[in-house]
Amino acid sequence: MHKTNFSDYHAVHKLQQLALHPFDLTVEGNLSPQRINSFIAQACGFRFLYATERVSAEVITALIELAKEARILEKMTQMQSGDVINTIHGFPSENRSVLHTATRDFFQHPNQSQRAIEATKEAKQEINKLSAFIQQIDAENTFTDLLCIGIGGSDLGPRANYIALKEFKKNNRNVHFISNIDPDDTVSAIKGLDLKKTLVLVISKTGTTLETRSNEEFVKKYFIKAKLKPEQHFISITGKGSPMDDPKRYLKCFYIWDWVGGRYSTTSMVGGVILSFSLGFDLYWEFLKGASAMDKQALTETIDTNLPILGALLSVWNRTFLHSPTLAIIPYSQALARYPAHIQQVEMESNGKRIDQFGRPSEIQTSMIIWGEPGTNAQHSFYQFIHQGTDVVPLEFIGFKESQSKQDSTFEGSTLQQKLLSNLFAQSIALAIGQKNSNPNKFFPGNRPSHILLGKQLTPYALGALLSYYENKVAFEGFLWGINSFDQEGVQLGKTLAQELIHCFTKSNDYALGEAFIQQLESL
Amino acid sequence: MHKTNFSDYHAVHKLQQLALHPFDLTVEGNLSPQRINSFIAQACGFRFLYATERVSAEVITALIELAKEARILEKMTQMQSGDVINTIHGFPSENRSVLHTATRDFFQHPNQSQRAIEATKEAKQEINKLSAFIQQIDAENTFTDLLCIGIGGSDLGPRANYIALKEFKKNNRNVHFISNIDPDDTVSAIKGLDLKKTLVLVISKTGTTLETRSNEEFVKKYFIKAKLKPEQHFISITGKGSPMDDPKRYLKCFYIWDWVGGRYSTTSMVGGVILSFSLGFDLYWEFLKGASAMDKQALTETIDTNLPILGALLSVWNRTFLHSPTLAIIPYSQALARYPAHIQQVEMESNGKRIDQFGRPSEIQTSMIIWGEPGTNAQHSFYQFIHQGTDVVPLEFIGFKESQSKQDSTFEGSTLQQKLLSNLFAQSIALAIGQKNSNPNKFFPGNRPSHILLGKQLTPYALGALLSYYENKVAFEGFLWGINSFDQEGVQLGKTLAQELIHCFTKSNDYALGEAFIQQLESL
Repeated sequence: MHKTNFSDYHAVHKLQQLALHPFDLTVEGNLSPQRINSFIAQACGFRFLYATERVSAEVITALIELAKEARILEKMTQMQSGDVINTIHGFPSENRSVLHTATRDFFQHPNQSQRAIEATKEAKQEINKLSAFIQQIDAENTFTDLLCIGIGGSDLGPRANYIALKEFKKNNRNVHFISNIDPDDTVSAIKGLDLKKTLVLVISKTGTTLETRSNEEFVKKYFIKAKLKPEQHFISITGKGSPMDDPKRYLKCFYIWDWVGGRYSTTSMVGGVILSFSLGFDLYWEFLKGASAMDKQALTETIDTNLPILGALLSVWNRTFLHSPTLAIIPYSQALARYPAHIQQVEMESNGKRIDQFGRPSEIQTSMIIWGEPGTNAQHSFYQFIHQGTDVVPLEFIGFKESQSKQDSTFEGSTLQQKLLSNLFAQSIALAIGQKNSNPNKFFPGNRPSHILLGKQLTPYALGALLSYYENKVAFEGFLWGINSFDQEGVQLGKTLAQELIHCFTKSNDYALGEAFIQQLESL
Repeated sequence: MHKTNFSDYHAVHKLQQLALHPFDLTVEGNLSPQRINSFIAQACGFRFLYATERVSAEVITALIELAKEARILEKMTQMQSGDVINTIHGFPSENRSVLHTATRDFFQHPNQSQRAIEATKEAKQEINKLSAFIQQIDAENTFTDLLCIGIGGSDLGPRANYIALKEFKKNNRNVHFISNIDPDDTVSAIKGLDLKKTLVLVISKTGTTLETRSNEEFVKKYFIKAKLKPEQHFISITGKGSPMDDPKRYLKCFYIWDWVGGRYSTTSMVGGVILSFSLGFDLYWEFLKGASAMDKQALTETIDTNLPILGALLSVWNRTFLHSPTLAIIPYSQALARYPAHIQQVEMESNGKRIDQFGRPSEIQTSMIIWGEPGTNAQHSFYQFIHQGTDVVPLEFIGFKESQSKQDSTFEGSTLQQKLLSNLFAQSIALAIGQKNSNPNKFFPGNRPSHILLGKQLTPYALGALLSYYENKVAFEGFLWGINSFDQEGVQLGKTLAQELIHCFTKSNDYALGEAFIQQLESL
């Protein structure tokens, strides 16, 4: 196998040259209506507007060349077909398929590879189990509340989704979350719940996650104290054969597989049980349809329709060639308040890697630091830095033509939704063009890049498409940077040391560094 | 006036030299129990453990020299005494005192300057009004819910506080928040509220904030529809004489002053009404006591007791000399879930400046990008990047010996709280020392700096001290970098352009760039 380096790509040298003089958005006329109308891609009901990025047609051409040289479309096809791409060549590694796309491949143009067909079949079985289970729940009408226990991928995505789609939920259905091993998290979540009517969902692929097992046992004690039988209230999502695959302890066990990474599990049962319980199965199905539609777009040839590739190329431009270490995701949609936290995980756990797919130290800096808060809130918080700080932060904006509730109010001649979108567009322009002023404190340098993902309304379908956009964008970035985006060895050392420390607390270990910290604690 | 540059300080050159070979935490024995016990400061019940920073005794000495050369203690004294420090010398600027410390200076060693005494007196008047108002509310028992409308400083701090102290709140008192101009934010907050029992708090210093006024009018419509009189439910916090200082429209008007910046208003009425309503006035008073105690520590001479100076010096070391563009704040306390978002504002709106206090382009990069999520959650999200990414992220950990509820569960021999703290200490060690391994994917480079703020329990007093730690730390950073941390001109351009765009929506303007965006929207 030829071990390509990033610097082996011809396009890299071209892009390095172009990066010396990136497109200047502050020159009058450079950001024009024509430019806004030209730098556009679209798919799945979204428009991707990127006139306010620091790219010329030449840069876009070179980025497309880079994508071709790195064969990223071919790699995406391999991924969606179930090839073993979660691997480090030449070293022991996970050696797995990466098939989260199979957990939603039930619609148009299903993948025809044997591996994908099998995975989709397995996923469909769980979907059918879920559909029947929800019907039963609805018919019996025993449960009004769902209490979810999970962490990381078993928490961030599903929780962000639930918050995003809460407007569409059934009146008598509420979902609550416990993730942190901090006991106050459980105490606070359980307060005020009517346990008789509460279904508890425990999520852990291995069935051994420390936080999740500890919190499950903690919650169980409340049920036992209330003289309720946990096995009539608890359900699980786990790998077949794990300690949590146990019909004696759980009313129902749903399955997940080692070809679905935790951070990519939002369309599997992990997200499915929560959405089906709260919104109904049909809206979960719509969500899957949106995600699958964007997966198919990720296989298309041109950046005018392949939003994930376009997003990835702009990331690489801003990160690798213009050297911005972070990306802020700013949804102008309060419902997406927790989406930045989910995408932070998807990107940083996937691409926060210092070695390439051959185990060599990466030549280049990989994953950006992802952060963000909803607009317009963020305008009144950290936008001072965004406009006038010494560092440039590329921004990914998300906006929708219509609100979810469609309730609105006209104030001083315009609706709130119009004001919201006005702010979104105004920021994009202001950051690009800046402002000259003889008072240096009123001077805005401009040339601060951004792009906008614009949709009609944040429906379950749109949310599915958005989720898949990010999942596939992150995969494409990994293909471009030449890293393995699908393992997470970096979390192991902390886990091991935490066990050492726990043994210090219980005096069954003498680890001097741990004891020094505990001593400080005890003298408080 | 002598216009000092950062590069004029002798200590800067020393620190640049030292930064070429920062303390190596990965060398066996370098991180020792002795080191853990030596690199400690303490104040207000907190220990500040910084053995896991990349600092030697020599670096600390040089940082202290820098603090002396930049006369930052003198500047803090000026700030707390009400000198006009919110200014850009030689250019039109806000020219104001910065006296948020006066909003809590009711305890030991009150500031003796005339300006501070007056400010404290004004603040105390509002406190007395609030105390009487809360007594009345409690006696009449009309209101169970408080709906707050505010954005930025009128939202993030108070909301983060409420979440932080919810464990201590009265059973029949709940607080809800509306900030975003997105109409879905209001629709979602108002759903399920019994408006008859709802008090509405509208917060805007100028009384003209677009989001807040629009949302107030939107909420008012719900009250009118429910045949309730807004003037019997709405109260305001605003500047004297602002459009919102109007007893005809509000049951009560509380005041704030131009010497309290929005992001520094958490201890004023802005935070006070919310905490007093939900926790009771006495706990708000405890919160103020903690904040004031840390303000006094910020005036002490040595870094062993002056936590804000120590925090600021470590920021400057990591940011200016070791070139880390971001700082992650990771509370191992679920109750502090929204604190990173508040501190993000305090730091980035204050120090995200490209000019110095004389209006010259800053020689150095200023504010770090602040981000973060609670641990242990974050360990299952972005810690892959923190341990093995190509970029170094300094971390500020916060932890407490005891949980808030003191309810806990023993699982496999240790409590959840012990497991939580084990993880905190383990991460700090793991990031520092790293791990050698012949498999490059299991290799951890180490030397990733962090420090820990360790307290006994997250009480109102501790939260007040923590808030003041951050406010004063950010001020000290600004003094070190030589910038004005107290204005926010960078938010103006976006506001102006948003008005242009609103007029495009209502067809009362022809702004070609705005129209191009709106056209894209309409064709969706």
